[in-house]
Amino acid sequence: MKNTILMMAALSGGMAMAEENMKSNIALVIHGGAGTIKKENLSDEQEQNIKTALQQALDAGYQALADGQDATAGVIAAIKILEDSPYFNAGHGAVFTKPGKHELDASIMRGSDLDAGAVAGVAYTKNPILAAEQVMLNSPHVMLAGSGADTFSKTRGLEQVENSYFDTEFRRKAWQEVDAKTRAKQAETASSDDVLAAEFKFGTVGAVALDKNGHIAAGTSTGGMTYKAWGRVGDSPVIGAGTYADDRSCGISATGHGEFFIRYTVASDICARVRYKNIGIEQAADEVIHQELKSVGGDGGVIGLDPKGNIIMTFNTTGMYRGYKKAEKSEVLIYGDE
Amino acid sequence: MKNTILMMAALSGGMAMAEENMKSNIALVIHGGAGTIKKENLSDEQEQNIKTALQQALDAGYQALADGQDATAGVIAAIKILEDSPYFNAGHGAVFTKPGKHELDASIMRGSDLDAGAVAGVAYTKNPILAAEQVMLNSPHVMLAGSGADTFSKTRGLEQVENSYFDTEFRRKAWQEVDAKTRAKQAETASSDDVLAAEFKFGTVGAVALDKNGHIAAGTSTGGMTYKAWGRVGDSPVIGAGTYADDRSCGISATGHGEFFIRYTVASDICARVRYKNIGIEQAADEVIHQELKSVGGDGGVIGLDPKGNIIMTFNTTGMYRGYKKAEKSEVLIYGDE
Repeated sequence: MKNTILMMAALSGGMAMAEENMKSNIALVIHGGAGTIKKENLSDEQEQNIKTALQQALDAGYQALADGQDATAGVIAAIKILEDSPYFNAGHGAVFTKPGKHELDASIMRGSDLDAGAVAGVAYTKNPILAAEQVMLNSPHVMLAGSGADTFSKTRGLEQVENSYFDTEFRRKAWQEVDAKTRAKQAETASSDDVLAAEFKFGTVGAVALDKNGHIAAGTSTGGMTYKAWGRVGDSPVIGAGTYADDRSCGISATGHGEFFIRYTVASDICARVRYKNIGIEQAADEVIHQELKSVGGDGGVIGLDPKGNIIMTFNTTGMYRGYKKAEKSEVLIYGDE
Repeated sequence: MKNTILMMAALSGGMAMAEENMKSNIALVIHGGAGTIKKENLSDEQEQNIKTALQQALDAGYQALADGQDATAGVIAAIKILEDSPYFNAGHGAVFTKPGKHELDASIMRGSDLDAGAVAGVAYTKNPILAAEQVMLNSPHVMLAGSGADTFSKTRGLEQVENSYFDTEFRRKAWQEVDAKTRAKQAETASSDDVLAAEFKFGTVGAVALDKNGHIAAGTSTGGMTYKAWGRVGDSPVIGAGTYADDRSCGISATGHGEFFIRYTVASDICARVRYKNIGIEQAADEVIHQELKSVGGDGGVIGLDPKGNIIMTFNTTGMYRGYKKAEKSEVLIYGDE
């Protein structure tokens, strides 16, 4: 009896400490895409612009968490800034599809109850991440695709824009170059799309947050692949592939060659390894990104965190736009050797 | 040295035996949907028609495997028959969307190299499972959605039909009833759709096969949810949710309330538990279907098999149209207490 009481006291103390730790552990990690990112290919100005946007996203998301808002709010505050920035392939700044338009994908998931929302191929919703949130909060569904997703977001009162709002000169030029090449080759076949797509597949944004109550949320947003055709859906709106969050293991947002990330269910596989193999999030991410994906040529990376606030930014490419913010430390990084 | 040689001889013998076992282990398991399926709600004729269609699908898929074709061929032979049958919510016999049309989803995955293909919202491709196969074999992508998916399937030479080909009187009546109810309630909101959808969400078909070389494939095909709106995508075309196959663990095809199956990445989670927890496929499926899903009201079930030919047909509903065929035994079942 005495032992039981002592044990209960110890447990209670432990729980109070754990709760205290939880509260001090708010954390945010973000990415703006992984790929062939080398110092010689970025001007100082480009580098500074990208870093500034990443820092603004980190600050906004972290502030939401510090104000006591939940993990979902932290994720959305960060991603909204990255969607509005022209420097990333999401929202304004999204790549062009084969017909010269934009089709955007986004998803969000919260680890407290595994609820989730996703949209694929929206063309008129200014901030796709907000549409994903509305699907999670105010529809019986998890995933909406195409014009129906825009219609839903409109009925939820989200800001609608002309498709040309997503245009940027940089992305238009990339599209024109691919378009010219394709026409020159009269290449309408899958295999030539494959070759072309390989050069233009990165730039997705994402965020994973841990709030003061120890809950995790993860979100991802993208314009997809330059010159994508046939209504191609990548990993970003696929729960389990581009985004996953489970308070019992971790939260993950992915970026890279989406087809591999779907086939390997990258986001949920990392969480599954943490949960079932009892390994840390860093080892789990290493196994998936550096072993499984690397062995089959699946280029890309992930960001993530676990309920203790351990953060990972793991990629098998030369660089990944990325950053994190915790109570004690914050960094914004681009290249692989930083 | 001697020990090593002995060990190698033993291993070699073991491998030869394993290979022999593999060859005799061809197996096929199929489903035609899970839900509130009770004996008092089915006429003898309906029951017989459904059982006959399931048996034909089993026989066709098994014959492909017995002829030495690969697991993918076994899956497709079985699913094609279920799509062509009017008794299941896939292909001809698919439910009606809110606007009174049909939008079909399908996916396929092979466990040998984790390649996969999926289509969401096709409206003119006679056999969606064949479109999913073409995405896997002849596109650089894994998932295509909407009209682009139909366009792709057409360029691949697949048979196209009028959308009305998918009509059946039974499904039209169900749609008309929901439509009348909705209009009576002036219910255009998400919550009322939710209530209505709850009654009409089952009938997906799927198959998982093990071929003579020990390779697994899994596939799923559906007409989705009666009266679905906003381009809702369920779990069937989502790799990891409705379909997963990995020779290292198992192959799974799911059917049920799709939103839960996406959030819990049901198909890949069962495979992850087999792989990382070193438990059998039956225990893994029980944990996911009877514990995880059941605890949150996620109705449905899965079929699956592992590389040894162990078969599962696990559901938390009153019934699931299902069947399997192995060398030594074959069964076709409907209700939960059989």
